[in-house]
This record gives sequence, structure tokens and C-alpha cells, in this order.
Amino acid sequence: MPLDLNSDLGEGFGSWTMGDDAAMLDIVTSANIACGFHAGDPSIMRRTCALAVERGVRIGAHVGHRDLAGFGRRAIAIEPAELRDEVLYQIGSLEVFARAAGDRVRYVKPHGALYHSAAGDPRLAAALVGAMVDFDSELALLGPADTHMAKAAEEAGIRFVGEGFADRAYTAEGLLASRKLPGAVLHTKEAVAQAVSIAMSGTARIVDGSGEVTVAAASLCVHGDTPAAVEMARLIRSSLTEAGIPVEAFV
Amino acid sequence: MPLDLNSDLGEGFGSWTMGDDAAMLDIVTSANIACGFHAGDPSIMRRTCALAVERGVRIGAHVGHRDLAGFGRRAIAIEPAELRDEVLYQIGSLEVFARAAGDRVRYVKPHGALYHSAAGDPRLAAALVGAMVDFDSELALLGPADTHMAKAAEEAGIRFVGEGFADRAYTAEGLLASRKLPGAVLHTKEAVAQAVSIAMSGTARIVDGSGEVTVAAASLCVHGDTPAAVEMARLIRSSLTEAGIPVEAFV
Amino acid sequence: MPLDLNSDLGEGFGSWTMGDDAAMLDIVTSANIACGFHAGDPSIMRRTCALAVERGVRIGAHVGHRDLAGFGRRAIAIEPAELRDEVLYQIGSLEVFARAAGDRVRYVKPHGALYHSAAGDPRLAAALVGAMVDFDSELALLGPADTHMAKAAEEAGIRFVGEGFADRAYTAEGLLASRKLPGAVLHTKEAVAQAVSIAMSGTARIVDGSGEVTVAAASLCVHGDTPAAVEMARLIRSSLTEAGIPVEAFV
Amino acid sequence: MPLDLNSDLGEGFGSWTMGDDAAMLDIVTSANIACGFHAGDPSIMRRTCALAVERGVRIGAHVGHRDLAGFGRRAIAIEPAELRDEVLYQIGSLEVFARAAGDRVRYVKPHGALYHSAAGDPRLAAALVGAMVDFDSELALLGPADTHMAKAAEEAGIRFVGEGFADRAYTAEGLLASRKLPGAVLHTKEAVAQAVSIAMSGTARIVDGSGEVTVAAASLCVHGDTPAAVEMARLIRSSLTEAGIPVEAFV
Repeated sequence: MPLDLNSDLGEGFGSWTMGDDAAMLDIVTSANIACGFHAGDPSIMRRTCALAVERGVRIGAHVGHRDLAGFGRRAIAIEPAELRDEVLYQIGSLEVFARAAGDRVRYVKPHGALYHSAAGDPRLAAALVGAMVDFDSELALLGPADTHMAKAAEEAGIRFVGEGFADRAYTAEGLLASRKLPGAVLHTKEAVAQAVSIAMSGTARIVDGSGEVTVAAASLCVHGDTPAAVEMARLIRSSLTEAGIPVEAFV
Repeated sequence: MPLDLNSDLGEGFGSWTMGDDAAMLDIVTSANIACGFHAGDPSIMRRTCALAVERGVRIGAHVGHRDLAGFGRRAIAIEPAELRDEVLYQIGSLEVFARAAGDRVRYVKPHGALYHSAAGDPRLAAALVGAMVDFDSELALLGPADTHMAKAAEEAGIRFVGEGFADRAYTAEGLLASRKLPGAVLHTKEAVAQAVSIAMSGTARIVDGSGEVTVAAASLCVHGDTPAAVEMARLIRSSLTEAGIPVEAFV
Repeated sequence: MPLDLNSDLGEGFGSWTMGDDAAMLDIVTSANIACGFHAGDPSIMRRTCALAVERGVRIGAHVGHRDLAGFGRRAIAIEPAELRDEVLYQIGSLEVFARAAGDRVRYVKPHGALYHSAAGDPRLAAALVGAMVDFDSELALLGPADTHMAKAAEEAGIRFVGEGFADRAYTAEGLLASRKLPGAVLHTKEAVAQAVSIAMSGTARIVDGSGEVTVAAASLCVHGDTPAAVEMARLIRSSLTEAGIPVEAFV
Repeated sequence: MPLDLNSDLGEGFGSWTMGDDAAMLDIVTSANIACGFHAGDPSIMRRTCALAVERGVRIGAHVGHRDLAGFGRRAIAIEPAELRDEVLYQIGSLEVFARAAGDRVRYVKPHGALYHSAAGDPRLAAALVGAMVDFDSELALLGPADTHMAKAAEEAGIRFVGEGFADRAYTAEGLLASRKLPGAVLHTKEAVAQAVSIAMSGTARIVDGSGEVTVAAASLCVHGDTPAAVEMARLIRSSLTEAGIPVEAFV
């Protein structure tokens, strides 16, 4: 089975930058591009879409809460109808830059607090998926498996793609272990091993060392916010290739 | 020749409202809908598009500067490349709501300070038109005739539609007389007469009473920000109809 | 015992207006003035402060979440340290306009979602009060009695002033009945009666008609968002006066 | 004569950072701290004020246009009255963090586009100075000498402090040479020499090599946006000290 590598890109705003997008676009197969609500602005969106298309990287709408000050990481109590509208707005705003670059938006991945709230709240999950249906039911949804997000996609006939993390330990329930737990954040060597394990056997070691847990992921999220993170992503990609796992976009 | 009536709509933001959109949508044939930069938010955009399509009113992207605090009325020194990106972003964000309502964005009209700067500055006019070409060359551009905006549209193969004003007096040069001049803002009766005159003969009386000037307008802008403005718009529409002028969208 | 009447004022933004501030400033004794985060802008703040001081109305900082799109009504998961900073920023920004008008900020009242979260969450209550101590411990805090907000104020040596509502029914526990319950929103006659009852006996009728409940309020909140609301506020003021209750600012 | 070194600090926003503030606070004597309009947020403002006071660095309000997307670098056509309100708001918002850190705002320096427009437009200069008078006439104004800004300060009885640049070449008129001209941006060695020259003789070499021009500056602006810029600032400071010029805050 091939594996996709995705990364959050285009997360600057105006004069502020974040991460090394150009480096990451040489590593990943899918680019989650911010749409101006939690990060990103029109010029960054155009530039990031163009770079992605040049490298054959797929474009996804990284939709988030309207919260530049909080970078979309703070839960906001939003009505589902309003969320649906905000998500649709963001997809539409990215689509035009994807088109200008010669491709189109192929999937949606919610960002930050919305990633978690849409996973856990069926009304928000339905709103997120509703916006995708409004736009085009051919869009895929990238997110955590076995959640309300996955279920809402299934019910709406939207393709769902499970996402895993190479550098984060999992609980026995298959959830990400809290960053506050010892061992929750994996070092490079462990992360590379976990990437290969998820790709080869669909499993990861449990954070407390008590065994293995199933991680249903067709895409791994990698980060580019520090030079070390970029290096880890590069190693994950080369290790997957060495292990004979094709690194390919899911769409 | 038929005449179009257009109005700036969807100009609330969050809990704030502006004008009587529902009333205006019964009067006009084209709706310039704000796209979130100078006014408007995703839920207002969805609602306004739905109301417009229900009544057969055409949807135009009313693109403006990113300036909620100034309502897009303040000139901002923006680089042409950035303006092009901001305009494309706004068209894309409105398109999805127009599509969700069953239609599409059919034209673009710049708002406020951008209306004036794109008329007078060839680089900004080209940027505005460039965004339209990026999106779809079938879009029409609504704005003041005999300007850099009109010229840029022509050069890019974009259809240009001249806009006139019923309630504003014109100078001998065919420009809007400054609001500071006596007689620059027309009262209801004069405005109705000017609307009919522009439609019938393509002319308006000059503000100083010195004669008539050509006003090349296939669309008249009417306002809905006060009950009196709505009433004036209604009278203009009925007077045009009585004068045998078909009131029809230009696209 | 005298009673204070307070109202949320200065809640426009840029070209958008909300409520009839001038009318309300003739009725109330305390003005909760928005500080630019959920509503309000520098020019509105200056104008509202000037009007308040002209009429001898006290100025309070109506601090809210940074959320113009949601008008501060949406809960935002904010870290206490960040909340403390945002509240201090807002108090400081209003203080300069109060000073320019010849008075100073005398109290703080949290707005919307922050009103509720600071009442229920001891960490947020402490952050709110911490900002007040940072600024000046002479500030009073206006909010719901018997809450973490009241307790945090007491612990920090900040004067707490309980707030009641004339037009909202109370539960047996002394809380506001949910707007979804029948009878939760009082009509003018009932609201006037409740205002007098809170002032005279410190009690209000329970929403289900089962008796009376203590409402410890030295200030009543009245609204100005509709002409009917303004009229109700006026009647409440005159009824209090007729009942011999002095209507006076609490600070 | 002693010389002050100032730098623009606290210019991050939310999750975005800019420059190495901690390093610069060991070099400069005056910190121009962003107030949330073009950059900066309440938590950054508190942190930067605390760091400045710890090191004995003076705090100035670096006031700018409300333009996070443009970093305050784009000219915005703002009415003087509105500018006055926006500047006063920003000073007030910084003052509370300066006070919390144990000091107070001691001067104002306009940022970016406002620096240039307030220098060249007497109405904007008067508005800027008007806000300072509203706040406290003891504030100093830091900016370019021989401008409307300097004149407006003088007329209002506000102390004006001329600012020079070590790393920018000057024209024969004593203005900064356009960055587009060859030699307009000085390399480290030249910049250090110019700093010493401005401090010792109040002159700088003219960009075209045609001689020297008077630069009336009691404060030099240094930058911290790159490691090389920080290093240049450090060299300027040590070279001034070696030349026997005391590096001291002007207020």
C-alpha cells in the first residue's frame, strides 16, 4: 500500500513567515494550504499553490477558525451553520489559486482546534462535510479515523482518508497521547520507525510500552516549522522508500 | 436599450447590519455582493446569494480593500500583484455561495476607494482585470466608462459595462461632481428624471446648469442604506418601466 | 438603597452602528463601553466617553474576546495569562479616552461569552481580576453575584458590584432562566415591576411562578438596541424614581 | 553629546515572531514597541515591556496604521481625527504594560507608512501630536528632523528628538536615499563609520560621494530582523563607546 505524506503549508501572514515551505514541498505529496482564516493570505496562497503544482504535490484546503491571533488553535464555540459557511468560503478562496496554478483543490483537512472539535462533535463534523458537499462531493476529507468526522464523511458519500502521525505516540485506544505525557513526542529515530510501522502493518507502539495499536492511516502528517522537523520529514520519506513503500498522494 | 439597476448588498458584518437588502433585491437586477474584505461575511454571502437567485437577480463580486474598519472607503497603497491576489481571493470566495444558490458570479464591481483607484491608475486597473482573467474571462466588469478600468478590460478581452448614477450630478467632463458642491446630490424627483434621461438619451444635466453631458451607462447604481433611498430606487425602477425602458440585467 | 442602571454602549464598528447610545446616556448612570475587541473603535470610544462625561454617566470598560465577527458572544478557549493581557490592553485603551473626556475608567464589566466564562471558571475569573489589579485596584467589577467572578474580586481586594436584569426571568437558584424557556424574557410591564422589586426587596419572581428568589444587585442592566428597548429602559428609570428609589451610579 | 540607540521591537503577532528582541534589548537604549495595530499583541507587549524595564531600556509607543496584513507599511488615506484617535488608543494600550513592568511610555515613534505621511503632511502630523497632548505632554516624539512632524511637535510644546540611520545613505538634502539607488544601503563597516560620524560631527557622507550633509540626530535606529542586523547593531554600540560617545536614552 502506498502512503501519502502531508504537511501544513502557507502558514505565514503578511510580513510574517512560518516554516520552510519550499523544502517541505520537495518531501511531501500533499500540501494542506492555509486559507486566510487562521493563517495565509492571498499572495501566500497563490505562491504556495504554484510551488505545489510545479512539484506535483496535491493541494488541500487547510480550513480553520477565523482566529489569526490564536493561529486557529483555540476552540471557538461556533454554530454549525456558520462553520459550514466559513469552511465553504475558505475552500472557494483556495480553489481559485489552485486553478490559476493549473490544478484544483482535491481535499480538505481541518486545522488546529477545528480538527479536534470536528472529530468529536457530530454537528460540527456534519457542517464541515456539508461545506464539502456544497462545493464538490469529489473532495476527499483528511483527518483522524474512527471519529465523527470520518462518520459524517461516510454518511455524505465523501471519501475519507485517515491520517497518522510519525512523531507522536499513541494510546491503547489509538488516540494521540497527550503532549504532557512522557514519551508523547517521538525523537527522529522513533518517528521514522513509527512511520514505517504504520505504513507496513498499520500499527504503532503504545506510549506506555504495553504493545501495539492499530493506526488506520493512508497519510502521515509531517512538520516543517524547524530545520530539525524538515530533516525528520526528509528521513521519513527516504526510510519509507528504502522499505519499499511507495510515497504517493492519496488523490 | 434596456437598463440594468445595480446595488451594493450584503454589507453587514457579524452582528452588524447595513441597508435593507431584501427590499433592494425586489428592485434591482444586479447585486454587487461584498466578499468579506470591506464588509460581508460567509453567512451573509450565502444568504444574499440565495435571495438574489430566488428573485432572478444577477450576482456580482463587490471586491474591496481589506479594511473592515474603513469600510473599504480609504485609499490603501497596495502593490498591483497583491491587489490581483486579493481580488481573485474575493471572487473565489463568492463564487462558491453563488454556486450553492444555483447560479455563478457573473461580473465584478470594485468598491469604494478601489473603484476610484482602479479607474485612475493603469497598474491597479490591470491588476483588477488580471484577477478576472485568472478566474474566468467570461466575467464582465462594471465600473465608470472612459477610465483605465474600461481600457484594461478592453485590452484583456473582458466585457466592460459602464455604470451611471441617478442621484449624483455630473460635471461637464462626465465625472461625478464632488459631494461638496451645491447640487451634487440629487433629490428624488431629479434623480428619477436623470435615470430616465441616461436610459433614453445617454445624457445627464451638468451640475452647473450649463447643458448636458454624455453618460455612457448600461447600468445605474441605486442605494438601499436608508428607507428614503429604497423608496427612491423603487421610484426609479417604476419610472423607467413607465417610460418604456426595459429594466434588465446586463449579463 | 440607590440603584444603578448600566447599559452596553459604543458597540458600533467603523461604518456600522448598534443601538441608540445618545438616548441611553440620558437614562443610565453607568456606561459599559466596548474597547475594540468585540466592538467599538477608537473614534467611537472617544465619542462615547465624551457623551458619557457630559451627562455625568460613569465609564466602565466593557471588555470582551477578540472576536468582531462573533461580537464577543462565542466562547473562546483562551489561556488565563492571555486573557489577563487582553483585558489589561482593553482597559488601557479606554482609559485614555475617559481621561481625554475629563474622567477615568471606574469599573470593568466583561462582555458576552467572557461574562459567562469568567463567572464559571475560577482561572479566568482570576485572570480578569488580575488585569484589574495590574491597572488599578480602585476599579470595581460589575457582574453576576455568587460566582467565581465575585469570589476572585473579593480575594484580590477588588470591590464587586452585583448586576441584575429587569427583563429576564430568574430560576429558583437565582440564575437567569434560559431564553428558550417560556416566560424567560419579560415584557415591559413585568420588567418594570421586577426592577422595582429588585431595588426595594432584593428579590424577583421565579420563572415558574413558584415564589421569589434573592437577587443581589446594586446595578440593573438595560438595553438600547431597539426603540422598544430604549422605551423600556426609560420606563424602568421613571418607575424607580416614582417608587422613591434613587437612581445613582455605584461608583 | 550622548547618542541614543532605538529599535523596533515586539513586532510579532500571535504565533508569528519577528527579529531577536532579547538580543536587541541588550544593545539599544530605547525600545519602540508595537501596539497591536501593525504588529504586536497584548502578551507580546507585556513581555517586551518587562524585558525592556529589566534592562533599563526606555519604552516608546511605536504607533502604526491598523494594517496587520501590510505590517503598517502601506499608506492609508486616513482622516486626521481618526488618526488622532487611533494613536491615542495605541499609546493607552501600551502604557498599561509599561506601568505593569514598573515604568511608563516615554515617547512615541510612528511606524512605517505613518512615519512618512506624518513627516510630510501637516494635518497628519498635527493629529499625531494631538494624540500625544491628549495623553501627556511630557511624551517626546521621535522622528525625522526638519519635517512637519518636528514642526507640529514644536508648536504643541512637545519635545522632538531627531532620528538618524546608520545603515542608510543620505542625499544632499539630508533625506534618506531611495533603497533603489546604488549605495543606498550601507554595509556594516560603512554603517559603523556613519554612526560615529553622526554622533561626533552631526554629519553623514552624501550617497553620490559629493560631500557631507548635516544629520541632526540624537537617536540612531538599528535593526534586529536578521542575525547580521543584530551583529551590526552590536558593533555600532561598541564603536560608539570606543569613540568615547556615551550611549544613553534621550529621555
